[in-house]
Amino acid sequence: MESQKRFFLQEKDIPTQWYNIVADMKNKPLPMLNPQTRKPITVDELSALFARGCSEQELDSTHQWIDIPEPVRNQYKNYRSTPLVRAYGLEKALDTPAHIYFKNESVSPVGSHKLNSALAQAYYCKKEGVTNITTETGAGQWGAALSYAAKVFGLELAVFMVKISYNQKPYRRLIMQTYGAQVVASPSMGTRAGKDIITANPNYQGSLGTAISEAVELAMQTPNCKYVLGSVLNHVSLHQTVIGLEAEKQMAMAGEYPDIVVGCFGGGSNFSGISFPFMRHNILEGKTTEFIAAEPAACPKLTRGVFQYDFGDEVGYTPLLPMFTLGHDFAPAHIHAGGLRYHGAGTIVSQLLKDGYMKGVDIPQLESFQAASLFAQAEGIIPAPESAHAIAATIRLAKQCKEEGKGKTILFNLSGHGLIDMTAYDQYLSGDLTNFILPQEEIDKTTSKLEHII
Amino acid sequence: MESQKRFFLQEKDIPTQWYNIVADMKNKPLPMLNPQTRKPITVDELSALFARGCSEQELDSTHQWIDIPEPVRNQYKNYRSTPLVRAYGLEKALDTPAHIYFKNESVSPVGSHKLNSALAQAYYCKKEGVTNITTETGAGQWGAALSYAAKVFGLELAVFMVKISYNQKPYRRLIMQTYGAQVVASPSMGTRAGKDIITANPNYQGSLGTAISEAVELAMQTPNCKYVLGSVLNHVSLHQTVIGLEAEKQMAMAGEYPDIVVGCFGGGSNFSGISFPFMRHNILEGKTTEFIAAEPAACPKLTRGVFQYDFGDEVGYTPLLPMFTLGHDFAPAHIHAGGLRYHGAGTIVSQLLKDGYMKGVDIPQLESFQAASLFAQAEGIIPAPESAHAIAATIRLAKQCKEEGKGKTILFNLSGHGLIDMTAYDQYLSGDLTNFILPQEEIDKTTSKLEHII
Repeated sequence: MESQKRFFLQEKDIPTQWYNIVADMKNKPLPMLNPQTRKPITVDELSALFARGCSEQELDSTHQWIDIPEPVRNQYKNYRSTPLVRAYGLEKALDTPAHIYFKNESVSPVGSHKLNSALAQAYYCKKEGVTNITTETGAGQWGAALSYAAKVFGLELAVFMVKISYNQKPYRRLIMQTYGAQVVASPSMGTRAGKDIITANPNYQGSLGTAISEAVELAMQTPNCKYVLGSVLNHVSLHQTVIGLEAEKQMAMAGEYPDIVVGCFGGGSNFSGISFPFMRHNILEGKTTEFIAAEPAACPKLTRGVFQYDFGDEVGYTPLLPMFTLGHDFAPAHIHAGGLRYHGAGTIVSQLLKDGYMKGVDIPQLESFQAASLFAQAEGIIPAPESAHAIAATIRLAKQCKEEGKGKTILFNLSGHGLIDMTAYDQYLSGDLTNFILPQEEIDKTTSKLEHII
Repeated sequence: MESQKRFFLQEKDIPTQWYNIVADMKNKPLPMLNPQTRKPITVDELSALFARGCSEQELDSTHQWIDIPEPVRNQYKNYRSTPLVRAYGLEKALDTPAHIYFKNESVSPVGSHKLNSALAQAYYCKKEGVTNITTETGAGQWGAALSYAAKVFGLELAVFMVKISYNQKPYRRLIMQTYGAQVVASPSMGTRAGKDIITANPNYQGSLGTAISEAVELAMQTPNCKYVLGSVLNHVSLHQTVIGLEAEKQMAMAGEYPDIVVGCFGGGSNFSGISFPFMRHNILEGKTTEFIAAEPAACPKLTRGVFQYDFGDEVGYTPLLPMFTLGHDFAPAHIHAGGLRYHGAGTIVSQLLKDGYMKGVDIPQLESFQAASLFAQAEGIIPAPESAHAIAATIRLAKQCKEEGKGKTILFNLSGHGLIDMTAYDQYLSGDLTNFILPQEEIDKTTSKLEHII
């Protein structure tokens, strides 16, 4: 019989604090700027948009550990710890000497890691007397998570869902509605941002950038309403560190420590969540673990983007963020990994990439689905198209281990399952999927404008 | 902070044996009959259709405990133990003094309890040198589970999927195909059974009974091929007892023992799985736990069926089973709980119902979705329409506890999640769902023929 397959923590061992890597970073991220004044943004300014609790965390560069509020921890207990799983099936299928582990965030009630931050943000809003919140969602993982979190803490939620997903992915919209959220296709006629875009291009199928603009606008114009974001920002990454903190304890239970940690990369939250707790040992103790962010070849901000101040949204409502970006009006091809179709990387991750603590790899769409299918048949879990990028990167590494005869220990984050994404698998199985090769001119076109921002 | 929310077993404490309740039953179930000879069927006869390992288990009335083969146990480790969860959220929403627990089988890779038997049956087939297997599936939970199990043990699988589900539930079909199975809409033109039905009624949308006939026929006509069934039969219930055996240990960890155990009821496998290990203490030690099987009001074999010998399939290929039945050509209304649309109950459960060890309750469709929505908003998990029947029955009991001021301990089986069933929720949310009230004449029509069978 194989050795232990899955590792869980006792409820009492679920982390009580999140890990704030900024406190340990030698080079701090450049400051976010107020888009009006172009000066470093303050907690007060941020709090106009976000809950104050989140705004404080966003700019906190001194506290290494931040307490997880008890009501949030109580909610975490509903699905955490998530299992750390030894992927014996995948190892066997690849005939690799590598030890492959994955953190299975897909067993959360909403099917992904997104709930870790959704619960925290909804809690801070509620605590501060907020009654209404807004957000955007692409494929719908984040929207589903926040819809449940809003219900838990008694908040009214409006979700702007990218129009193409709204139409093509009715299941996730229905999940949000089942939890009681209002879901609006973006661009909509209900905001100035949406109306302007529809007027200019009536057939525009939406983008995360546009949906963010709409959600921000509605939040700013509604009394007692805050905006909530599912990735990119520092406080979101902070909340996701519960993943890596658990994984660290669970890897110890397995008697191992990762040589390589892999996560897929959209805005950075799941990658940060699994990576930062391990990366702190690189920063503080000189460990040499490698950190690999797997992004889609169709939206390669880490491997082919520029490091520049840029907006988080299409219209330019958000603070200016110093980040690796393809430009805030970059419109990525319609790959199935909707959660990875975002133009920029968070400020912390961007600084860490610059400083060589991590690296990006870009995965073509077909390779991601080949990896996903192999994983499904070997481990039983059909992964989300986003998570499939982490699996593809892991498979590359495991094959390299085989070539080199090295038994490295690889840990990746299975950020979500793909049971709501079966139409994507349908296209793959039918041979209708293609790779999107992004021409350099397109990147140049949207990034060349950025130099004028500051 | 609340007390512990979820209970897991250590891997070493996952059951090593299944529990065979027949060995403990004072009144044994009546024998299955060979449809040709009308004499009690033998292991040799059954083995023409099923794996010998399963056939032996099917007729075993002497061994109380049956070893789980190590390769099956190794596969169980991929997702077992499943969590036992204290439903604090649901208790609060109902303001009930009842303690509500559920066994969360929805976290299996395929999203339901069905994998527990699929892995066992695929294993026995493989061990006996079988290369091809056939089965049927309604909503697709069983088909998805067997598709993965077939891949694990290297078997070729053909799934006959009820035509209405094939067309209306493409996601589950795609899940099966992603695991590598062949999926055929039933009735098909590839079998005599299917061809006859299509000829008589070209628009027939299929039924489980018909799909079973087709799968049995193909298995009988294909060399080295066996038929595999997902519920109803004794060996399937046997494999599912791993649910209740785990739950018994986990309830002990919680310091409780159930006053009432609830499962939804189609053919009986998930209900049997959660119930039998607890019921043995009623049989052997005189405990007084209540066992409630929740069936749809549209397919009420336990509450309104007759106890008679009947076929398991439409055409009459299967052995004759002594069971509570609505008649093998009963065509239930198209409720969304496809897995509960089966005309008969397994022989063990039927005997236990006759002997008063359990009882059935029938749940109207709207009540099941009201319960499902409440549960989703209170506990985060969107349940399968089938499992929603167990939730609805549990809610009735918890409300009764409130009225009577009694703090009973209720355990139900959350047999699967509903993420692939969101179109059903769509109809519910849109107000388009109706209750199907089954006229007594319909039951009389299909059950009156049964008296002539033996």
